[in-house]
Amino acid sequence: MKALEDKILSQGKVLPGNVLNVSSFLNHMIDADFSMQMGAEIKRLFAGEKIDKILTIEASGIALAVATAAALHVPMLFAKKSKTSNLSGEFYQAKIHSYTHSNDYTAIVNRNYISKGERILIVDDFLANGEAVRGLIKIVSDAGAVLAGAAVAVEKGFQPGGRMLREQGIHLESLAVIESMTDSSVTFRKQ
Amino acid sequence: MKALEDKILSQGKVLPGNVLNVSSFLNHMIDADFSMQMGAEIKRLFAGEKIDKILTIEASGIALAVATAAALHVPMLFAKKSKTSNLSGEFYQAKIHSYTHSNDYTAIVNRNYISKGERILIVDDFLANGEAVRGLIKIVSDAGAVLAGAAVAVEKGFQPGGRMLREQGIHLESLAVIESMTDSSVTFRKQ
Repeated sequence: MKALEDKILSQGKVLPGNVLNVSSFLNHMIDADFSMQMGAEIKRLFAGEKIDKILTIEASGIALAVATAAALHVPMLFAKKSKTSNLSGEFYQAKIHSYTHSNDYTAIVNRNYISKGERILIVDDFLANGEAVRGLIKIVSDAGAVLAGAAVAVEKGFQPGGRMLREQGIHLESLAVIESMTDSSVTFRKQ
Repeated sequence: MKALEDKILSQGKVLPGNVLNVSSFLNHMIDADFSMQMGAEIKRLFAGEKIDKILTIEASGIALAVATAAALHVPMLFAKKSKTSNLSGEFYQAKIHSYTHSNDYTAIVNRNYISKGERILIVDDFLANGEAVRGLIKIVSDAGAVLAGAAVAVEKGFQPGGRMLREQGIHLESLAVIESMTDSSVTFRKQ
């Protein structure tokens, strides 16, 4: 999505440790109109797929997920982050490692809100190592639902998450794929 | 907002401790189309106010806040929850007590994203004791911005948050105000 690449170039900041800071429009301050445009673009990219529900994880995935859900006129469900496993049986859960924060957390989703056979599209703001998406895929699978695909705003193409998901045959769409970053430049993969 | 009251009556569940569970459409699973309708209603209720930015707090305020921001064509900013005070000076911050979780946390907002004189509308899903809204008001004030008002989906009218904000002269709009709840009934305040 050319408009997203332009926005990353004009507003993004590369920080030490291969961190791309896009908090001025994507994950702290949100350009709401632009989120709606990204949601409409994800709808277009998955035009061939039946999608019953959007699944994301709190907090920074929510804005894009609700924009996508509004474009598709389907519900959105966000997994909550819990520090502990919940043993009550009320939740589907997946353990996720955060490279950003160097810790583990458990993503939980109330069992009432995913049904067997439902077609789920996972949406998130960033894809790097793919830990969060893999956790959400486990939840979709545990629920007996069907993974329609995954869509992210920004994929770090030099980290393995995207490649691993594609190798599994998952329909993954990334609105912008960063091929490489230096302090002074960001290079995108041609799509 | 009659449609919200109807949805609370048909889908909400009253749990012990005066908890209203609306996680099937408001704060775990999100009815995205309905969120957009609520955002449009908040726009209508603040039609007389100039609003430059929406401010909310992660995670369950984000969906309604982005819907409101999209309706108004302004940016949305969400405060992040931190377990510790951040001493770097990079953030505006406010200590907030959570009655739900019986703990304190610090809401933080990057100083770059609120400007002096900007007119801010605070949006959240729930208003009970008003702790979160008061924390966000402190951040608006610390930034030298102007509080245009506050809008919430559901106000628990039998808890003091709404009354205290109105007594301070704050323009508060609650799409539904719950006057009382029992295990078997929910009564709304006439608006």
